[in-house]
Amino acid sequence: MESIFKEEKWVAMMKYDVVVIGSGVGGYPAAIYLARKGYRVAVIEEHLIGGECTNYGCVPSKAFYQVAEAIRTLKKIDAEIRVDWYNLYEWIRGIVEETRNGLEDLMERYGVTVIKGKALLGREKLVKVGDNRISYEKLILALGTDPRPLPNLEFDEEKILSNRGVFKLGEKPDSLLIAGGGVIGVEIANIFANLGVKVYIVEALQHILPFIDKDLALAIKQYLLKKNVTIYENIFVNKIEINKGGIKAILSNNERIEVDKVLIAIGRMPKTSGIGLKNVFVETDQHGFIKVNERYQTSNPRIYSAGDVIGQPLLAHKALLESIAVAKNIAGEEIFKLNYTLIPLTIFSGLEIASIGYTEKELKNKNIKYRRIRLPIYFLSSVKIKNGRYSFIKILLDEESSRVYGIHIVAPNASEIISAYLPLYMGKIELEEIARTPYPHLTVSESLREIAEYILGEPIHIFLKK
Amino acid sequence: MESIFKEEKWVAMMKYDVVVIGSGVGGYPAAIYLARKGYRVAVIEEHLIGGECTNYGCVPSKAFYQVAEAIRTLKKIDAEIRVDWYNLYEWIRGIVEETRNGLEDLMERYGVTVIKGKALLGREKLVKVGDNRISYEKLILALGTDPRPLPNLEFDEEKILSNRGVFKLGEKPDSLLIAGGGVIGVEIANIFANLGVKVYIVEALQHILPFIDKDLALAIKQYLLKKNVTIYENIFVNKIEINKGGIKAILSNNERIEVDKVLIAIGRMPKTSGIGLKNVFVETDQHGFIKVNERYQTSNPRIYSAGDVIGQPLLAHKALLESIAVAKNIAGEEIFKLNYTLIPLTIFSGLEIASIGYTEKELKNKNIKYRRIRLPIYFLSSVKIKNGRYSFIKILLDEESSRVYGIHIVAPNASEIISAYLPLYMGKIELEEIARTPYPHLTVSESLREIAEYILGEPIHIFLKK
Repeated sequence: MESIFKEEKWVAMMKYDVVVIGSGVGGYPAAIYLARKGYRVAVIEEHLIGGECTNYGCVPSKAFYQVAEAIRTLKKIDAEIRVDWYNLYEWIRGIVEETRNGLEDLMERYGVTVIKGKALLGREKLVKVGDNRISYEKLILALGTDPRPLPNLEFDEEKILSNRGVFKLGEKPDSLLIAGGGVIGVEIANIFANLGVKVYIVEALQHILPFIDKDLALAIKQYLLKKNVTIYENIFVNKIEINKGGIKAILSNNERIEVDKVLIAIGRMPKTSGIGLKNVFVETDQHGFIKVNERYQTSNPRIYSAGDVIGQPLLAHKALLESIAVAKNIAGEEIFKLNYTLIPLTIFSGLEIASIGYTEKELKNKNIKYRRIRLPIYFLSSVKIKNGRYSFIKILLDEESSRVYGIHIVAPNASEIISAYLPLYMGKIELEEIARTPYPHLTVSESLREIAEYILGEPIHIFLKK
Repeated sequence: MESIFKEEKWVAMMKYDVVVIGSGVGGYPAAIYLARKGYRVAVIEEHLIGGECTNYGCVPSKAFYQVAEAIRTLKKIDAEIRVDWYNLYEWIRGIVEETRNGLEDLMERYGVTVIKGKALLGREKLVKVGDNRISYEKLILALGTDPRPLPNLEFDEEKILSNRGVFKLGEKPDSLLIAGGGVIGVEIANIFANLGVKVYIVEALQHILPFIDKDLALAIKQYLLKKNVTIYENIFVNKIEINKGGIKAILSNNERIEVDKVLIAIGRMPKTSGIGLKNVFVETDQHGFIKVNERYQTSNPRIYSAGDVIGQPLLAHKALLESIAVAKNIAGEEIFKLNYTLIPLTIFSGLEIASIGYTEKELKNKNIKYRRIRLPIYFLSSVKIKNGRYSFIKILLDEESSRVYGIHIVAPNASEIISAYLPLYMGKIELEEIARTPYPHLTVSESLREIAEYILGEPIHIFLKK
């Protein structure tokens, strides 16, 4: 066997049925699933167990969000609140650590070997990690993504932050400029604004959250403006000057903004460099995402891939089910492919967004005729109590049948309640039945019964003109 | 026509198709529904529009709860919080008023006549309110309930409180004794404990929340004990002495407790006295609740009844659908009866409870064999972040089929997520399909996918022994 590795010395050879590169949400579920079935499984992780979601994404951001929302609630009654920044960060760090340790522990109990280090792919079913050579029958690439920097501006995670630095600031900044009004940008803007930080969002496209239904983006914009967030749309950051005191950002409209910190949240890049994809003939698309077939196999049939590195949407619940799908396919149980039309997008932005299915724009582009139901739900006491002004639910229905094309929610708790709406979207339950189901009072989920009544022309809490 | 009214003078006679007595959740939905259909409808209310739920129940308690939970979150990071009691109460009052005004406005727009005053039922389709005589073709009794006092102890709503006084205290008490560990008792205990009030619960039965699955009651007990709530079970309040400084309660075990305020939450009484039910031959059961048939007709077929006054469970979502059912039946549209097995019980107690279907005890009493799935869900980051220690989900399944007998949840956000579980309980969706549905990360609703995977023997986040 000819070695592909440059450095040649005696190394231990470890044999596994399945090797997973990346311990994030695209990786560990497959590892656990297969280990439970009796496969010998190794996970290679060059950084922290749990990947982006656990360490720098969903987990710390939602912990931070929980505190920010509590502050928002108490501000409504003019409470005096003094948050110790160190305590806040320690608490978030604790939650992250507990989650990460939980995953490590789980993998250990299931007998998954965790190998720390950078993987280099070789031919002949071999991976090298440092001095170790590891062989596999099947390989799963769950490489994830990195934050995309601005041109000529590296992340120092001190002043120029990505999602990896923003949850670890030693003290509260007075001001924050966020380049990019996508999910991360909007979530962080909401959190920091609640904490009293002056926030600027600079979005290069026509409007913030450009990929969602425009009505929803507008509602969030109104909401953030009310919080004193300054939003620039159709404008980009031209230049960043880092000075001793702070940072000066020069925008494409020539405005100059001085801030303490800058968060760059303009997109993600698949983390595929330096791993040797070419050695194993794994192809990527024009954006660098790994190409897979219906079974999540790459162009090398022995090698599978899942999670963010195979492309949009970059969501943990999508990565998780892809990872399980890969495992099921490897185990030969069944050919399981995630139903991509079923993936809700959620944005944890105070007034939360949850969205599933087609937007109006998509339906128009596809020339599909549809009925548009838009119900403001501020009349619900649950929404009032949670300060949910601008809340509404939009359902896009087939013009004639009861088929649902899209459900778009802007409301407090939207991230939780979309799960109650899923069966409607899936065609599992009819509007007539929903209208007769006693969803509990006083919740935001009740909106489901309300909107069913409304569509059926029999609302109780909405005035319907004759 | 012989008048049944004692006082006989000229009075205006107002004619309506339908008269509703009580503007609470059992009353106004029927009024609005029928008015929208073109019926001439009047609602008679002797107190405040919206009834108990809007004015003294769900609405103020959930507003209060929202603040209490925010404080709980911020205490986790040792934040300093100073809440101005007056601001808090003004905010709650504002929410209640906005909700009440919304209902008044809605009824007005639908052309429902609202008559303020105490109704007295007469024969010959007549109701008297003060000097007015009102005639109806159909009558709906949505009379609601009153709080049950302790023997020989009236509510002064200053020191001896019911749910009607507890949301209107002028200042924060240092200590509160709650007689009754039911839903109201437990919810108020959680709220006041979060606000730093020393709380005692005295429950006469074997354990608090005696009507729910025992495991759930135990979890809530642990949770409240951790908050420094003192819980007496199998003990009752023997005597209350009101002194100048405070109140001394003497318990059945001879313990003496001195507190600032006492909340009596030992049960509810149907509000049927003084209205003249006998005049119209409407029968009540042994507990005083109005008896109705499948169509919600009382023993007088012209008279219907809905909501708390017809009996358990005393829940707003039950009352609402009963009220709509009455309206549909009166409109002759269809015979609609609420499916009572479908009513979730929710308790907003920090670590919330949501429960539907049979408890284990009920299944045992019925000699139904069942499988018991109990999944602790503290491993979910969403539950960790919301401080949800002791959280679990229990599903009771048929021994052989996939039929679900009961779903019992103890977790943060349980009140919202139960709606996502309902389709499983209703048999609308199979476990296999749930396991493949990407419920959004990072939510408590995700537990649905997790428990489906667990039941199917393929959990990712739980170690399963081989």
